[in-house]
Amino acid sequence: MTDSVSTPVHDARPARKTYLVGSRPDVRVPMREVALTNGATVVLYDTSGPYTDPGHVVDVRRGLPALRAGWIAERGDTAEYEGRPVRLEDDGRRSADPLRDQGAFPPRRPRRATGGAVTQRAYARRGEITPEMEFAALREGVAPEVVRAELAAGRAVLPANVNHPESEPMVIGSRFLCKVNANIGNSAVTSSIEEEVEKMTWATRWGADTVMDLSTGRDIHTTREWILRNSPVPVGTVPLYQALEKVGGDPAELTYEIFRDTVIEQAEQGVDYMTVHAGVLLRYVPLTARRKTGIVSRGGSIMAAWCLAHHEENFLYTNFRELCEIFAAYDITWSLGDGLRPGSIADANDEAQFAELRTQGELTRIAAEYDNQVMNEGPGHVPMHKIKENVDLQRELCDGAPFYTLGPLTTDIAPGYDHITSAIGAAMIGWYGTAMLCYVTPKEHLGLPDRDDVKAGVIAYKIAAHAADLAKGHPGAQAWDDALSDARFEFRWEDQFNLSLDPDTARAFHDETLPAEPAKTAHFCSMCGPHFCAMKITQDVRRYAEERALPESEALAAGMREKAAEFTASGGRVYLPITPSDA
Amino acid sequence: MTDSVSTPVHDARPARKTYLVGSRPDVRVPMREVALTNGATVVLYDTSGPYTDPGHVVDVRRGLPALRAGWIAERGDTAEYEGRPVRLEDDGRRSADPLRDQGAFPPRRPRRATGGAVTQRAYARRGEITPEMEFAALREGVAPEVVRAELAAGRAVLPANVNHPESEPMVIGSRFLCKVNANIGNSAVTSSIEEEVEKMTWATRWGADTVMDLSTGRDIHTTREWILRNSPVPVGTVPLYQALEKVGGDPAELTYEIFRDTVIEQAEQGVDYMTVHAGVLLRYVPLTARRKTGIVSRGGSIMAAWCLAHHEENFLYTNFRELCEIFAAYDITWSLGDGLRPGSIADANDEAQFAELRTQGELTRIAAEYDNQVMNEGPGHVPMHKIKENVDLQRELCDGAPFYTLGPLTTDIAPGYDHITSAIGAAMIGWYGTAMLCYVTPKEHLGLPDRDDVKAGVIAYKIAAHAADLAKGHPGAQAWDDALSDARFEFRWEDQFNLSLDPDTARAFHDETLPAEPAKTAHFCSMCGPHFCAMKITQDVRRYAEERALPESEALAAGMREKAAEFTASGGRVYLPITPSDA
Repeated sequence: MTDSVSTPVHDARPARKTYLVGSRPDVRVPMREVALTNGATVVLYDTSGPYTDPGHVVDVRRGLPALRAGWIAERGDTAEYEGRPVRLEDDGRRSADPLRDQGAFPPRRPRRATGGAVTQRAYARRGEITPEMEFAALREGVAPEVVRAELAAGRAVLPANVNHPESEPMVIGSRFLCKVNANIGNSAVTSSIEEEVEKMTWATRWGADTVMDLSTGRDIHTTREWILRNSPVPVGTVPLYQALEKVGGDPAELTYEIFRDTVIEQAEQGVDYMTVHAGVLLRYVPLTARRKTGIVSRGGSIMAAWCLAHHEENFLYTNFRELCEIFAAYDITWSLGDGLRPGSIADANDEAQFAELRTQGELTRIAAEYDNQVMNEGPGHVPMHKIKENVDLQRELCDGAPFYTLGPLTTDIAPGYDHITSAIGAAMIGWYGTAMLCYVTPKEHLGLPDRDDVKAGVIAYKIAAHAADLAKGHPGAQAWDDALSDARFEFRWEDQFNLSLDPDTARAFHDETLPAEPAKTAHFCSMCGPHFCAMKITQDVRRYAEERALPESEALAAGMREKAAEFTASGGRVYLPITPSDA
Repeated sequence: MTDSVSTPVHDARPARKTYLVGSRPDVRVPMREVALTNGATVVLYDTSGPYTDPGHVVDVRRGLPALRAGWIAERGDTAEYEGRPVRLEDDGRRSADPLRDQGAFPPRRPRRATGGAVTQRAYARRGEITPEMEFAALREGVAPEVVRAELAAGRAVLPANVNHPESEPMVIGSRFLCKVNANIGNSAVTSSIEEEVEKMTWATRWGADTVMDLSTGRDIHTTREWILRNSPVPVGTVPLYQALEKVGGDPAELTYEIFRDTVIEQAEQGVDYMTVHAGVLLRYVPLTARRKTGIVSRGGSIMAAWCLAHHEENFLYTNFRELCEIFAAYDITWSLGDGLRPGSIADANDEAQFAELRTQGELTRIAAEYDNQVMNEGPGHVPMHKIKENVDLQRELCDGAPFYTLGPLTTDIAPGYDHITSAIGAAMIGWYGTAMLCYVTPKEHLGLPDRDDVKAGVIAYKIAAHAADLAKGHPGAQAWDDALSDARFEFRWEDQFNLSLDPDTARAFHDETLPAEPAKTAHFCSMCGPHFCAMKITQDVRRYAEERALPESEALAAGMREKAAEFTASGGRVYLPITPSDA
């Protein structure tokens, strides 16, 4: 199957792909360069992958180029091997389906460590700056040493399974830009391969830094293969979901062996990080009895059910060290799940939640012994005044490991708008130090997100993440706002659209009122018409100060007096930059 | 014109209007009572006015009943008088327009004080609890004395012009529920009377606590009359806009006399609060010269232009005491405008902004001498880490007067989504103590909001306001979340919809996936199908504890062991409450 299939990604933005080249020619970091009408350019972080490079021929059936293959190979600490045979049950099937099987990738020989840990953390601890670290540093605009040091300390992760060489390296940690994850996953057996890939490219086009494939039901293995081979961003999963499918959906039937087999299966495919609910301990389950909304995490429910059924300790906890060895051999990053996270405002920051967080801390330290990379997942539903405590406790209990939170939603009264209830909490928790935000779509609690919901969720979370970067004082974050504010004040409408998170929507909203092309360069907005403007006054005062070369304060005072006459002579009208809320 | 015109407000919610009756039979406070399928009821604050009372016959050409007329008259401190004759120029016209003039209300004789101040603050200071105060207290669920004390101290306002007897009293202050204002205003001369009224009823249906009529251009006076006569919520304006229309749009031509005449005109119509940019002092204008986005407030621009043109001090500042006397005679509440608020992240919390805030404080104290009610307007565009300083300074400089902020937007990079960029800031500033939030719609900076934008803005801001109430620990706020969370956990889908801020959208989103009616009462959601659920586990553990009458911790431990066997016997399946982001 080699016919070229172009993805449905269209980029209307007059932005061009540009590359920052590092210390070696194969470290080429993609950026989005926006050319402004005033001759300046703004260079922005770019998660969209090769799909937005006109020089790249898209063929989802071949997958993306293996960007990191050479770097992985040259380290000489991994080798290809035969790999686990793919079974029909991996796709939740009992018999082959010729139609679906057309879609399978040719078998690949997976790679794993031949000796010690092959994690970016292990390299960092040894003082090595890998090409992956340099790549991520260039994207962030920081020195590669900063990335190395944060990885070594466990305060950041760089998810990069050796079997996902297609991914463009990125770093997650509170020292860096706040990241956004988008969840995708097959919702119907009728999804085509192109549709699955398109969900991922759609989310990354709008700025998702990672995607989690939460598929259930049929064709899990094949769907994941397509996503991985075509994903320029790290891919996360919850292996427990697939393990549960393998036992017919009955949690009591789960075994560690089935779970471990699923981890190996996904490790060989190239999953970069895995959510594992190893902190849901038997003794914590009763702590949820008095809760308003019990256990709402799917993984948490599954493990609680297993613990109740067997009256035994969680097998993910009891086998954690062996899993660490596996994770070290592929460089899989832990995303330690919060299976007992609150599902309502009433349950926020309760005993069950923080008991599990303490165990996450214990597991984080064990994983560090194996040079594993670790993130901790966090809530959920938390009112604003209880958000900071979550970050402070996580940082303390988990030694500063990156925090990865779902929202949190700051109120429960707005189903249908939980991208907003949670963007509020996400922005705040990002400011307080959360490294990655898992998006929430408008369909949360109600149904399955469609294409529009995915976009709405990603945009709301890019807003939250960027607001957090601004509040954290991330170097360079404000330059983007400044460029847009300048464009706004100078009525460079096209620049304002092109610099926005969603140029299509900004342009469409403007054109509803003033569709004509010249309006986009005119010095007025749709609400006021062509008056003189406040900008002109500002410019006049500034020019006066320059011409007289006076200290600015004096110039301003003198300018004011002169302006009075000049202003009256010129008609004395100001620009009225009104929208109905600009009272 | 007495034909009955029904408004286009439809309320699909199975909620009924109910009334709390106070110490006298004419204090009847409307509330929205949601009947749940489990027999319980939830009573919520209701801003929708008589339109949602089936016993009320809507006739926008007659206006609403004059709820407060008796209370105002019985105080005996106001009298009707001839009033200022309405002029063609009040509607921005030179000649009569028979078609439009059909729409005029019959002339009404306005009312004003016969002696001292007739403000709610004056009564409060004298120790009187008015029916208005009792009404507002019942809505809030607090003792009337609390409202009186907060009004007397100037920490709250109860906007209630004696010429707007149709309004349902409400209180704005940090001690009370956080309020939301929606801006409306005619955007085209083709707007019909019904359309204007409908904008207001649409905004209040979704929860707007006040509306500001920011109309410009033709028919300002007549539009405002229709809105006031039909508005159950306080109405605010920016009189400067109309004054500017009267001088042909040239700020230099403005005079105090024209402004004063406009204030009287609007006072007689019943405007409850007025934005006045009296703090934009001549010497502050140069402070904006080095700003990224200069002056972005329309009122601020107008007054800055006037100051520059005349090189004189702002006439609103120099005549402030006379305006206080007028405000005292009608009970108009000040909304001291922030004409120098920042228009970009870069300009937040700068010298120009805080200089004006200090002057707002000076004016707040002067107004207190006249027993005026006062709010202070605030920004604007502020990154998260600079928000709290705004509230702290305002409280200190303005003696705890209610703060009334526009957003603030927490980033500038998302035109088209500024209801979200600003809902983040609004929730936070509400938590910190802001009393009322002025909404921002998705069209902010881009165009004129339509019906959908108004709804999107109001809902985003109700979320922000409620999240703030939760974080402030407002008594009763969490009961709403709890009721919805209970419904969610118990799969009472209809209750979940009916308790939500927007039942229509919640129901529609759910029905996209599972449209059948029985699905709404079934114990499963669209993502999982009919499994056993975590709720059932919780219930079983709870029941065990009750039956054995053991101390709960022991019961839980014992219950756990028993559950293991029982659970396995029953099939050992758990409910998997997944949505794709419920990893």
